[in-house]
Amino acid sequence: MKDATQIRDVKGAILDAADRLLARSGYKKMTIDDLAAEVGIGKGSVYLHFSSKEEIALSHIDAVIERVKTRLHEIAQKKTSYESRLKEMLIERVLCRFDSVQHYTQSLNDILSKIRPSLLERRKRYFEEEARIFAALLRDGVNDGAFARINVEDIARSLLLATNSLLPYSLSTQELGERNEIEKRASALADLLLKGLIAR
Amino acid sequence: MKDATQIRDVKGAILDAADRLLARSGYKKMTIDDLAAEVGIGKGSVYLHFSSKEEIALSHIDAVIERVKTRLHEIAQKKTSYESRLKEMLIERVLCRFDSVQHYTQSLNDILSKIRPSLLERRKRYFEEEARIFAALLRDGVNDGAFARINVEDIARSLLLATNSLLPYSLSTQELGERNEIEKRASALADLLLKGLIAR
Repeated sequence: MKDATQIRDVKGAILDAADRLLARSGYKKMTIDDLAAEVGIGKGSVYLHFSSKEEIALSHIDAVIERVKTRLHEIAQKKTSYESRLKEMLIERVLCRFDSVQHYTQSLNDILSKIRPSLLERRKRYFEEEARIFAALLRDGVNDGAFARINVEDIARSLLLATNSLLPYSLSTQELGERNEIEKRASALADLLLKGLIAR
Repeated sequence: MKDATQIRDVKGAILDAADRLLARSGYKKMTIDDLAAEVGIGKGSVYLHFSSKEEIALSHIDAVIERVKTRLHEIAQKKTSYESRLKEMLIERVLCRFDSVQHYTQSLNDILSKIRPSLLERRKRYFEEEARIFAALLRDGVNDGAFARINVEDIARSLLLATNSLLPYSLSTQELGERNEIEKRASALADLLLKGLIAR
């Protein structure tokens, strides 16, 4: 009987293999047989962990989001100013996702259009989890007088909403090749959200 | 021989018919035969105006964007404060598109996933055109001291980027049913973009 660590390892190996196959041949062409062969296990073993190809693609995205959340927690705990931490977090939520799909190039449109409805449903949960991390920093910043008095939950959601258009889901194939440009846009957007437009 | 007005009328009639068919049966099921029958013209006449089904769907979206731009120009010319005009324009760019696809419900995902690559390409032009309308208002506002000294072209693009996540393309089927919720989010986002987060 396998213990918990071994089960996690097989699951992780399937997700790693899915990442390689998705990048190489795209979602449409990837089969469970290919995946099993890539990992070096039987097809039945894949189905022990995942019910379908869509479930594998979604779990792969789950893993990317876990990485994003870890990075956000790390930045939130830095000793820099609230403003610079917030700005860094907004840029990081964009670039961390960007880097996780950069090797997909042409095949990303294929994946995203196939799993679009399930992904849009799941995105709600991702954003709630991310919003909590931002709200915690905002709350501390308000208490320390760095941010204006605001409803931190609402503002956290607005900040995510404002930067969502820079996530891979919304980018064209060409834009997915332009990391510097995406970073520049995220940075400009973060500045605007921090400073606002009204003259003082 | 038909004159220019008649040609525009047939083109408009085809686009109106496409709107009805897309809402009723979705993109996948819509055929050029259906379209011709709905307008009451021959299949060949449809091909005189449009080279493909995708071209018709994209032209339909073009018409929606023209409506958005007209509304933005109207708001920009109002006599209210710069702040309130800018806020109204940001909300309108979201709601005008929302209203144009509200009758699509389930079939929107179908259309958007099918024409995704061409649409992402075309969106670039849409945003450039919209950005010009926003930049003109920002320029007047900066000159009159209502807005901080900014690069108006860059800020116009950031404003669009920030509200793009509320456009139908990025909403789930459920969210496409919640007009009040979308309006509330657009309004909160506009406030944040105007006022910024930093305490003063």
